[in-house]
Amino acid sequence: MTRRLRLGMVGGGQGAFIGAVHRLAARLDDHYELVAGALSSDPVRAAASAAELRLDPARSYTDYRAMAQAEAARGDGIDVVAIVTPNSLHAPVATAFLEAGIHVICDKPLALSVAEGEALAALAKRQNRVFALTHTYSGYPMVRHARELVAAGEIGDLRYVQVEYLQDWLAEPLEAGGNKQADWRTDPARAGRAGCLGDIGTHAWQLAAFVCGQQPSALAAELNTFVPGRRVDDHVQVWLRYAGGARGALVASQVASGEENRLVLRVYGTRASLVFSQEEPNTLWLTPLGGETQRLTRGRASGDAARHACRVPAGHPEGYLEAFAQIYTDAALQIHAINAGEPLPLATLHLTTVIEGVAGMRFIEAALASHDAGSAWTALG
Amino acid sequence: MTRRLRLGMVGGGQGAFIGAVHRLAARLDDHYELVAGALSSDPVRAAASAAELRLDPARSYTDYRAMAQAEAARGDGIDVVAIVTPNSLHAPVATAFLEAGIHVICDKPLALSVAEGEALAALAKRQNRVFALTHTYSGYPMVRHARELVAAGEIGDLRYVQVEYLQDWLAEPLEAGGNKQADWRTDPARAGRAGCLGDIGTHAWQLAAFVCGQQPSALAAELNTFVPGRRVDDHVQVWLRYAGGARGALVASQVASGEENRLVLRVYGTRASLVFSQEEPNTLWLTPLGGETQRLTRGRASGDAARHACRVPAGHPEGYLEAFAQIYTDAALQIHAINAGEPLPLATLHLTTVIEGVAGMRFIEAALASHDAGSAWTALG
Amino acid sequence: MTRRLRLGMVGGGQGAFIGAVHRLAARLDDHYELVAGALSSDPVRAAASAAELRLDPARSYTDYRAMAQAEAARGDGIDVVAIVTPNSLHAPVATAFLEAGIHVICDKPLALSVAEGEALAALAKRQNRVFALTHTYSGYPMVRHARELVAAGEIGDLRYVQVEYLQDWLAEPLEAGGNKQADWRTDPARAGRAGCLGDIGTHAWQLAAFVCGQQPSALAAELNTFVPGRRVDDHVQVWLRYAGGARGALVASQVASGEENRLVLRVYGTRASLVFSQEEPNTLWLTPLGGETQRLTRGRASGDAARHACRVPAGHPEGYLEAFAQIYTDAALQIHAINAGEPLPLATLHLTTVIEGVAGMRFIEAALASHDAGSAWTALG
Amino acid sequence: MTRRLRLGMVGGGQGAFIGAVHRLAARLDDHYELVAGALSSDPVRAAASAAELRLDPARSYTDYRAMAQAEAARGDGIDVVAIVTPNSLHAPVATAFLEAGIHVICDKPLALSVAEGEALAALAKRQNRVFALTHTYSGYPMVRHARELVAAGEIGDLRYVQVEYLQDWLAEPLEAGGNKQADWRTDPARAGRAGCLGDIGTHAWQLAAFVCGQQPSALAAELNTFVPGRRVDDHVQVWLRYAGGARGALVASQVASGEENRLVLRVYGTRASLVFSQEEPNTLWLTPLGGETQRLTRGRASGDAARHACRVPAGHPEGYLEAFAQIYTDAALQIHAINAGEPLPLATLHLTTVIEGVAGMRFIEAALASHDAGSAWTALG
Repeated sequence: MTRRLRLGMVGGGQGAFIGAVHRLAARLDDHYELVAGALSSDPVRAAASAAELRLDPARSYTDYRAMAQAEAARGDGIDVVAIVTPNSLHAPVATAFLEAGIHVICDKPLALSVAEGEALAALAKRQNRVFALTHTYSGYPMVRHARELVAAGEIGDLRYVQVEYLQDWLAEPLEAGGNKQADWRTDPARAGRAGCLGDIGTHAWQLAAFVCGQQPSALAAELNTFVPGRRVDDHVQVWLRYAGGARGALVASQVASGEENRLVLRVYGTRASLVFSQEEPNTLWLTPLGGETQRLTRGRASGDAARHACRVPAGHPEGYLEAFAQIYTDAALQIHAINAGEPLPLATLHLTTVIEGVAGMRFIEAALASHDAGSAWTALG
Repeated sequence: MTRRLRLGMVGGGQGAFIGAVHRLAARLDDHYELVAGALSSDPVRAAASAAELRLDPARSYTDYRAMAQAEAARGDGIDVVAIVTPNSLHAPVATAFLEAGIHVICDKPLALSVAEGEALAALAKRQNRVFALTHTYSGYPMVRHARELVAAGEIGDLRYVQVEYLQDWLAEPLEAGGNKQADWRTDPARAGRAGCLGDIGTHAWQLAAFVCGQQPSALAAELNTFVPGRRVDDHVQVWLRYAGGARGALVASQVASGEENRLVLRVYGTRASLVFSQEEPNTLWLTPLGGETQRLTRGRASGDAARHACRVPAGHPEGYLEAFAQIYTDAALQIHAINAGEPLPLATLHLTTVIEGVAGMRFIEAALASHDAGSAWTALG
Repeated sequence: MTRRLRLGMVGGGQGAFIGAVHRLAARLDDHYELVAGALSSDPVRAAASAAELRLDPARSYTDYRAMAQAEAARGDGIDVVAIVTPNSLHAPVATAFLEAGIHVICDKPLALSVAEGEALAALAKRQNRVFALTHTYSGYPMVRHARELVAAGEIGDLRYVQVEYLQDWLAEPLEAGGNKQADWRTDPARAGRAGCLGDIGTHAWQLAAFVCGQQPSALAAELNTFVPGRRVDDHVQVWLRYAGGARGALVASQVASGEENRLVLRVYGTRASLVFSQEEPNTLWLTPLGGETQRLTRGRASGDAARHACRVPAGHPEGYLEAFAQIYTDAALQIHAINAGEPLPLATLHLTTVIEGVAGMRFIEAALASHDAGSAWTALG
Repeated sequence: MTRRLRLGMVGGGQGAFIGAVHRLAARLDDHYELVAGALSSDPVRAAASAAELRLDPARSYTDYRAMAQAEAARGDGIDVVAIVTPNSLHAPVATAFLEAGIHVICDKPLALSVAEGEALAALAKRQNRVFALTHTYSGYPMVRHARELVAAGEIGDLRYVQVEYLQDWLAEPLEAGGNKQADWRTDPARAGRAGCLGDIGTHAWQLAAFVCGQQPSALAAELNTFVPGRRVDDHVQVWLRYAGGARGALVASQVASGEENRLVLRVYGTRASLVFSQEEPNTLWLTPLGGETQRLTRGRASGDAARHACRVPAGHPEGYLEAFAQIYTDAALQIHAINAGEPLPLATLHLTTVIEGVAGMRFIEAALASHDAGSAWTALG
C-alpha cells in the first residue's frame, strides 16, 4: 500500500463544524495522517485544538503563512493542506500553500470572486499541484452513477433540470444570538456577498452540472432575505437555460421550515428521467419514457463509477461521511499519481477541483448581476 | 334524503376521457341522475353515446342551445349541466345554460380570456345559479385539511410556495399521430393559446391558492415548447410574489419523461411546512420548525374540512374519483341550498367556482404577458 | 349497454359501516340500481333507512325470508341480493335468496363453519346462481397484476409468502363502550368463534392465495387475546406450508397501535419477489433476483388483468371503493353472462366466490384446531 | 485527548469482507491504531495482508496463540484484539487473548454453544477485560433512540414484536461455486450447525432484545433449507413469547429474492408503536395510539442515547460504517475507563458484549431444539 499522505489543516479548531468533518473524511479510507495545523489564529485555542488532535506542538501554528513555509522546509513536511476557514480566507491560504508546492483540498465556495478563482486555477496549474474542492455530494456513489448514465446517453437529450436545496437552520435570526456558524456565514466580510447563494446554492449548481455533464449558458435569479436584519440572502430562486435548449430551475433556501438538508436533483431527458435525493443517498430512481421506474441501489444496480466510490455491499447504507471521504480518497489517488509522475486514473475519478470552483464563482457573480438587474437573463461567461 | 338532481352533459361522447370521469364522479355519492346530453355534435356519435348511457333518445341532443331551451321548457328538465367540451366552448355553452336558468358544473380552464370569464361570473351571479369549476384536486380531503391548517395559522406567515405538476404524456408529438386528446389540447383554436399552461398550469396555480388562502400579486413566466412542431407550450416555469413578501415557484410540464401525474405542493411558513403529493393523496406531511415531521392521514389525523370529504375510514385509500365526486357533491349541496332558498353550509364547503376560474384566467393572461415581455415581472389584476 | 341489475340489500341500515360501502361500490360503475332492502329487523329503523336510500316503501322489508319470496314473485324483482349482516346470518340469508333463484353478493367471512360453507357452494351450483364474496382486496388492479405475474412464472417457484394485516381499532375494549361495530365483531354468537382471525385473517389468507394461485397444505396457528375481557381473539399468528415446499407466515392483529389498515403481501420466488401494500394500492414492487426493483404502477406498467380493473389513467390514484366496485362489476358481468346463457369472460375475471369462501372457512377451522392443539401443524382439508 | 488504543486483529486477511469493515470502523473515530495481526494462518497471505495494512512485519503473526503471548510481552503490546475469524475460532482465540490480559472485540455469533459462551463470559469477568460483540445494528443512533423510548415507557406495555432480516445473497448455491464467504458460512464445521439462524437470525434476535429491553421467555422455531445440497438452514421462522404476555415473530432468510439487507423491526405496545428499517437508518417512526405518525430523525428528533452515537447534523445521512464505528468507540470508552479504574459512562453506553453473545447462543440452541421437536414451544434458559 502507498504511504499515508501527511495532512495539514488551516481552520477547524475547537467549535468548528466542518473541520471535524474533514478529519473524519480524511481518516476513513486511511490515505492521510494529520500532522500539522493552523487551527486557529488565537494561540490558546490553536494549542488546545492541536493537543486534542494529538498534534506535535511544534507543528501547531497560528499563522498559515508561517505554516506553509515551515512545512515546506521540513523533510517530513505536509503533502497536502485542508482549508476549512471562512470563505474570505480560501484564496489567500490556498495561494500560500500552492506557492510552497503543497497540494490543496479546499472547502467551497472557492473564493470571493471569479477573478480570485481564476488566479488560483492558474497557480495550481503552474505549480502542478492538486486543488480539490470538497463538493461533497459529488462523492456519493449514486450521484456518480447518475453522471455515468447521463454521459452514456441513457436519458437522451436533456430537457429539464430541477435542483432544490432546502434547509431551515437559518429560519430564525441565529446570528443575533451568537451562533458561531450563523455568525460568519451571514457576514458579507467573511462569507462574501452571497449568503445562501454561496453556501448551498453552489452545491445545488455543482450537483446539477456534475450529473448533467454541462453548465447552463444563462440564468435569471432572484435573491431574497426573509429574516429581518440579515445581511445576506437566505432564499434564492434561479432559472437556467442550457445551450441545447434545455431549461432548469434551482432553488436554495435556508429558511424552509422543517427541512433538514433536502438536496434533490431531478433530471428529465427525451428518453428517461433520473431522481436523486441526498437524504436517501443509497438510491437512484430511473424512469424510461414509457417504462417502469427502476430503483437503482448503491452496491447492486450500478456501474464502475459508483463501485469505485463504495466500501460496503448493497443494503448496508453509506452516507455523508463516506461521500466526503471519497473526495479525500480521490484527491489522494491524484496526489500519488502526480507525485509519481503517473497518469491519473481518470476513468473512475470524478474529483471536483478548482475548475468547478471557478464555475461556481461564475454562477454566483451571474446570479448577483441578474438579481441586481431585476432578474434579467444573464449569460454565463 | 333529498331527491337526485337531474344532470345533463355537453360533450363527453364516446372516446372522450373527462366526460366519463364526470359521470363516475356524479354517480358516486348518489346526488345526480344523468338524464340528458348533447354528447357530440355528430348525430350518429351523439345517438350511440346516449344509448350507451341509457339516455332517453328524446333527450339526446346534437346542439347545446337546443338542449338548453328544451330542457328548460320541460317540467322534469335538468337541474344542472356538466360541460366537458374543449375549452373554447366552455363560455358559450355555460352562457346558454345559465341564461336558461340551469346550474353549471364546468371543466377547467374556465374560458379563453379574463373577459369571457368575468362575463360568466357576472351572469351566474345575476341568475343566482351555482357555477362549479372542477378543480379536482381541491376535492381531496388532505388538500382541504391543508387549507384548514393554513387558515388556522399552523404554518405561521407564508414564506415560500413550491408547486409542480409534471406529466410525460406529451413528451412525444402524439398530436401528429391522431391522438384525440393530444389533438385538441395542442390546438390553439380549441384549447386557447395556453397549452400546458392552461391544461395543468391552472391546476397547480389553483391548488397553491386554495391551500394558501391567497393569490400571488405578481409573476414572471417562461413558456417553452420542447416537441418540434407543437403549436402551444408544453413546459412552463413561473415565479410568484405574494403581497406579504412570500415567494413561490410553479412548474408545469407535459414532457417530463417518466412522470405520470406528479402534482406536488410544498408550503413553507415561519412556523411549519406542509407537503402534499397528489399521487399519494391520503397523506399530508406537516413539519413544525424545530419539531418532527407528522404524517397526517385521511380519516384519522384531520379535521372538519377533511372529514366532510371522506367516505371510508383511515387506511382505506380514497383517490382521484372520490376527489372529483366531492366537487359534484359540494355542488349538489349548494344547488339544493339555493333551490331551497337556504343559506349554504359554508363551514365545510370548499367548492371551487367561476370565481376561481376567473383567477385562473388572470394567471394565464399574466403568464402569457410576462413571457412575451422576456419573463418580466407582471402584476396580477 | 346492458340494463342495470336490480339490487336488494339485507342488513346495512343506518349506522352500519359496510352496507354503505357496498352501496357506493354498487353505484360506481353503474351496473346496479338499489330497489329493495331488509335493512334492519327493527321496523322503525328499516323504514327510516329505506327512506334515506329513496327505496319504494313497499319494497322495504323487515324479514329477509319475506323479502326473498316477495321479490322472487315480482316481475321487476331483484336480480341479486347483497348480504351485509353479521357473519352468523350469512348462510341463512344466502340460502333463502339462492332458493328463490336470486344471485348473491355476500360479505366475508362466508359462514360459521366449513359445513355451512359447503352447503352454500352446493346450493349455488345447483341453482346456477352467482355467489360473489366481497374479498375487496382482490379487486385492486395491482393485486390482479401480481396474480397474473405469478401465474406467468415471473417469480419462478414459490419460496416464501409473508402476509400481514395490522389494525389498531380494537387496541382498547371498545365493545365495552357500546361501539356497534366492535360489539358484534367480538361477540362469538354473531361473529363466530374466530374474532380477528375471521374478520381480517381471512382477508390476509385470501390475498395470499389469490396472488400465489395456490392454497397452503398445512398451518400452525396461535391465537391471542390482548384486551382483557374480550371474548374472541384479537391477534393471530399463523405459519404456512405449501405442497411444493414453500413456507409462509401470516399475522393479523387488531391491537397493533398506530396501524390503520396495514395489509402487506410479500411473495418471494426463486426468480423474483413481489410486494403489495394495501395502503398504497396503485403500486406493485417487482424485484428480480440479481436485478433492480421495478415500481409497477396501475394504469401504466401492468397487463390485461389490471387494465380490466382500472377506470382512470396512471397517476390518478384509485382506491378502496374502486376495488370494492370491481367485485360488484365482475359479479354483474357474470350475472349478465349467466342470465344470457353465455360463457363467462374468464380471461379478465378474477371474481372471488363461494369457493374462496369455503377455503376461508377451512383456514379458520384449521387455525382454531391448531391453536387448540398447542399450535401443532394441522393439514388443510 | 486520550491516546489511541493499540489494536491487533485475528483473521481479516486479503479477500475477507468483515475484517475490512472492522478496520474502517476502528479508524473512523480515531480511537485505535492497528499495529499487529494474525491475518491469516497461511504465511504468504498473512505477510501480504500485513504489508498492505502497513503493519510492522515483526508484528505479523500466523498463529493467534503466538500473537497473544508476544503482544502481551511487549511494552507497546496491543491493548485490544479484534476477532474476525469464522465462528468456530471465536472462542479459542478470545480465550487466548483474555488469558493474556488483552481486551476483546469479537464478531458475532459469539461461539458455537452456550457452554462456550458462558466460559468466555466468566473468563472476561475474571480478567476484568472488555468483551465487545459487534452487533452492528445496535450502533445506529435511531436504534438507540428506540431503546430509550421503550425504556421511558413511550410505547406502554409491549404487545407484539415483529423482526425480519431478509437477504438474497444465498438464493443460489454460491458455496458450490467457490464463493469464499458462502463457503465457510454454510459449512457446519466452521460456522456451526446454525446457518442463516446464526449468521443473521442472531442479529434480528439481538436487535429486538436491545430495543425492547427484554428477552423472550420461550420460542417455537422452524428451520428450512431451500437451496438443494446446502448443509445448513437458509430460512428460519421463529415465534416468540415474552414473560409479560407479549408475542413476537422473527424471520431470517438468505434466499429472499430481491432483498439486499432488509432488517426491519416493528414494536407494538399498548400506547404506541415504533418502526425501524436498517436500510433507512436515519429515521425512526413513532405512532401513538390515536395520534399521528411521527418521523423521528437522527440528529434532530432524538435524545441523549442517539446524540451520543451521531457525528454529523440531521439531514447528513450516517450509515452502516458509522454504526459499526460506534461499537468500536463505545468499546474504547469502556477500555479507557477500565484501564483508568474509572466508572463506565453508562448513561450513554449501549455496548453489546459477551452477555448479549451468551443470550444469542441460548437463542440458537433453543431454536435448534424446537425445530428438532417439530417446532414445539421451548423455554429459553
